[in-house]
Amino acid sequence: MAEKLEGAARAEALTTLGESGWAEVDGRDAIHKTFVFKNFTRAFGWMTQVAIVAEKMDHHPEWSNVYKTVEVTLATHDVDGLSALDVTLAAKMDRLAS
Amino acid sequence: MAEKLEGAARAEALTTLGESGWAEVDGRDAIHKTFVFKNFTRAFGWMTQVAIVAEKMDHHPEWSNVYKTVEVTLATHDVDGLSALDVTLAAKMDRLAS
Repeated sequence: MAEKLEGAARAEALTTLGESGWAEVDGRDAIHKTFVFKNFTRAFGWMTQVAIVAEKMDHHPEWSNVYKTVEVTLATHDVDGLSALDVTLAAKMDRLAS
Repeated sequence: MAEKLEGAARAEALTTLGESGWAEVDGRDAIHKTFVFKNFTRAFGWMTQVAIVAEKMDHHPEWSNVYKTVEVTLATHDVDGLSALDVTLAAKMDRLAS
């Protein structure tokens, strides 16, 4: 079961995530990042890689795609906020996009 | 080059699309439909099939996914509204989801 990120652990995670472009969502305990690729095939190819990772983690993103752009929001439903699952998935997304 | 759907052709297309759950978007010449699948794998599997079709058509959806739900908006940028491309892609999406 996921645990809600709080206090120093939360602050540290947000600082690290912030360095790669993740930002807190206004009015909601969640993080957001916009990924821009070269074209649709690259964008959707990345989404496919992430989808397999997410399914294996049993932790899924909220995301939208318009051509080469993918907007991602991460949060953990069970804790109604951020958990280590979000930090892990965010890092995997960054790695797959790099 | 795509041509904007207008008049009787537009009305007829919207009627047919309406029968399978596509609706006009408020304040924008576009159509929208919510697809709900059994789980994430089914939802993303369908998106993958659609992505290949869309890339072949060089006509891409605006879509968002949260777990088993996919929200789709279709419009044709070149005509700033609906064209036959949207009608074709909508029908292909329906067929792949059925």
